[in-house]
Amino acid sequence: MLEERGGTGGPLLGDLGEDGLLSVIFPLLPSGPGVLIGPGDDTALLSTPGGSVLATTDAMVRGRDWLDQWSSGMDVGVKTVAQNLADIAAMGGVPSGLLVTLIADPATPLAWARDFTTGLAHAAAEAGVPVLGGDLSSAPQGVLVISVTALGDCCGREPVTRSGAHTGEVVAVCGSLGHSAAGLLLLQRDQGALAPELVDYHRAPRPPHQQGPLAASAGATAMIDISDGLGRDAGRIAAASGVRIELDEQLLGDDVAALAHVVGQDDAWRCVTAGGEEHSLLACFPSGAGLPVGWRKIGLVVDGSGVMLGGSLVVGGGWDHFGG
Amino acid sequence: MLEERGGTGGPLLGDLGEDGLLSVIFPLLPSGPGVLIGPGDDTALLSTPGGSVLATTDAMVRGRDWLDQWSSGMDVGVKTVAQNLADIAAMGGVPSGLLVTLIADPATPLAWARDFTTGLAHAAAEAGVPVLGGDLSSAPQGVLVISVTALGDCCGREPVTRSGAHTGEVVAVCGSLGHSAAGLLLLQRDQGALAPELVDYHRAPRPPHQQGPLAASAGATAMIDISDGLGRDAGRIAAASGVRIELDEQLLGDDVAALAHVVGQDDAWRCVTAGGEEHSLLACFPSGAGLPVGWRKIGLVVDGSGVMLGGSLVVGGGWDHFGG
Repeated sequence: MLEERGGTGGPLLGDLGEDGLLSVIFPLLPSGPGVLIGPGDDTALLSTPGGSVLATTDAMVRGRDWLDQWSSGMDVGVKTVAQNLADIAAMGGVPSGLLVTLIADPATPLAWARDFTTGLAHAAAEAGVPVLGGDLSSAPQGVLVISVTALGDCCGREPVTRSGAHTGEVVAVCGSLGHSAAGLLLLQRDQGALAPELVDYHRAPRPPHQQGPLAASAGATAMIDISDGLGRDAGRIAAASGVRIELDEQLLGDDVAALAHVVGQDDAWRCVTAGGEEHSLLACFPSGAGLPVGWRKIGLVVDGSGVMLGGSLVVGGGWDHFGG
Repeated sequence: MLEERGGTGGPLLGDLGEDGLLSVIFPLLPSGPGVLIGPGDDTALLSTPGGSVLATTDAMVRGRDWLDQWSSGMDVGVKTVAQNLADIAAMGGVPSGLLVTLIADPATPLAWARDFTTGLAHAAAEAGVPVLGGDLSSAPQGVLVISVTALGDCCGREPVTRSGAHTGEVVAVCGSLGHSAAGLLLLQRDQGALAPELVDYHRAPRPPHQQGPLAASAGATAMIDISDGLGRDAGRIAAASGVRIELDEQLLGDDVAALAHVVGQDDAWRCVTAGGEEHSLLACFPSGAGLPVGWRKIGLVVDGSGVMLGGSLVVGGGWDHFGG
C-alpha cells in the first residue's frame, strides 16, 4: 500500500502528442443524456432545466504560453479572456460568466496578480461578462498557471458546431490572420519596434468575439476560432463536416502582404496559414446569401477531405501541445 | 515596449495569504445582473434563459495537493471529482457536468494520465455526471496540475448558501471528520498500515455528496463542505450568517475517539476540528424538525460571532494556500 504509486515506464505524453493523448482519454470519459455537445467542439453544450449552457475551458502556463519578459500580467489577463470568449463565439454564443483559477508560486509578486486581475477584469467588463468565482492554489517554485472556464448562451439559436459545412458553401474569416504569430516572431528576433501593433496583438489579442452570434444569425453552418492555425482549424471543420476546404491563395494575398514587409514573404505566409493564438473566427456560409459585415471570403467548401491551399493538401503546421 | 514586463518589487502572494489576496482581487472583478450568487460561496449561481446553473472550480497541484509516492493518478482523479462535487452538494445541488484540464510536463508517463482519467471517470460515472470537455496544456519540467470545473443544478429548489443560518438552529454534519488529515499524518509518519482506510480516504475521499440535495429538501438553512477544517468552515457559515456557532466537545467525542488510537488524542482532536480535504457536509437545520438520515448534531447556532469549541473561540487552524 505504501509503495511508489506514480505510474512509470511506458510511453510519455510527449511521445503521443495532443491528438494521441485525446484518443486515449476520450473513450474513458462518461457521457450522459444531458450532454447535447460533448468533447471535440469549441465548447460543450449542456442541457439545463428550461434551456442549455455552453461551457469551455482554457489554460495558460508561464514559460509555455507566455514569457514574463514579453508579456505583463495584464496581457495574460486579457489573453485568457480572449481565448475563452472566442470559443463561446465560435458556437454562435454570447458569454455569460467566467471562472478564474490562479495557481501560483507564493513568491509571485502581488503586483503581478493585481495586473493579471486588472487585465482580465477589463477584458471581461468590455465583453459584458461577469466573473462568477474561481480558485486559488499555491504551486512549486517558479510555476504560474491560469485556468479559465467560460459559460455562455446560444440565445435561442441552434449552436454552430464544426460539423455543419456543406459542399458549395463559402469559407470566410472575421478578424486578422497571422498577427499573433508575426508578433511573436518579432519578439523572438528582438524587432518588436518594427510593428508594435503585431506585438500587442500577440500579447493581448482582441478577436471579434461579438461576431460569433451575428454569424450564427446570418446562417453560418460551421464555425471555429483559429487557435492552432488557419490550416489546422479549417481541417477540423473539414473533418467534422466530411468535406474538403479549398483556401484561395489570392484571397489571402492581402493578409500575407500586410505582414511580409515586417517578417518577410515566407514567414508572412506561414503566419497567415499556420499561425496560432489568433482567435479570429472561421466559418462557412451558404453561397449566394452574402456575408455579414466584417467577414471576408477566403475559400470554398468542396467534396473531398482535408484542406487544400495553392493546389496542394495542407498537412500539419499547427501547434501540438505535447508533440510540438 | 520591450522592457521586462513582469511586475516586480512589493509584497509577494505568500505575504498576503489567501484571504488577503482575495481581498485585493475581488473588488477588481466585474459582476452583472445574471450573477445570482457570485464569488464567496461554495459555487456561483448563474442565471440562464429558463433557469440557472451552479458553477465551481478546483485545482490540484503535484507537490502541494498530492505527492506521487503517496497518491496514484487514479487517487488524484477520484479526489478532484470529490472536491468539485462536494461544492455542488454544499449548495444543495446535483452535479450536471465536469470540465477537466490537465497541465502536464510532456515527460509525464502516459500511464499516469490514463490512471488519472480512469479514476476521474469512475468517480464521475458513479455520481452520474458526464465529462463535457476540457483542455490539455504542456508545462515546464516536473509540473503536473489538474483543474476541474463542475456545473450543477438546484432542481427547482433555492440554493443553500452559507448565509442562511439563524440563532437556535442545530449544527449538523454528514460524513466523517478528520479522516483525510489523519490519513495524511499516518503517511507522514510512515505508519499507513495502522489504518489503511484513513490513508485511502486521504488519497481518494468519497464524501457523501448525494446528501447535499437531501439536506436542502429537509430544510437546511446554510451549508458548506469541509475543505479547510471544521473550525474554519464553520467560521465561514458564522461570518456569512452573522451568527456564532457553538461546537459541542461531547458530540465530537466519537469522532475523536475513532482516530485517537492511531494518531494519539491530541492529533485526533486537531484532525477532527481543523483537518482539511474531508469534504463532508456541514449544515444548519431548524431545531425540532429532526435531522435527515445520515446527519448527526455537533452543535448549535447562537447569537454572536465566530466559532466556540470547548468554551473558547476557535481561531484559525485551517489551511491557507499562500500564507500556510
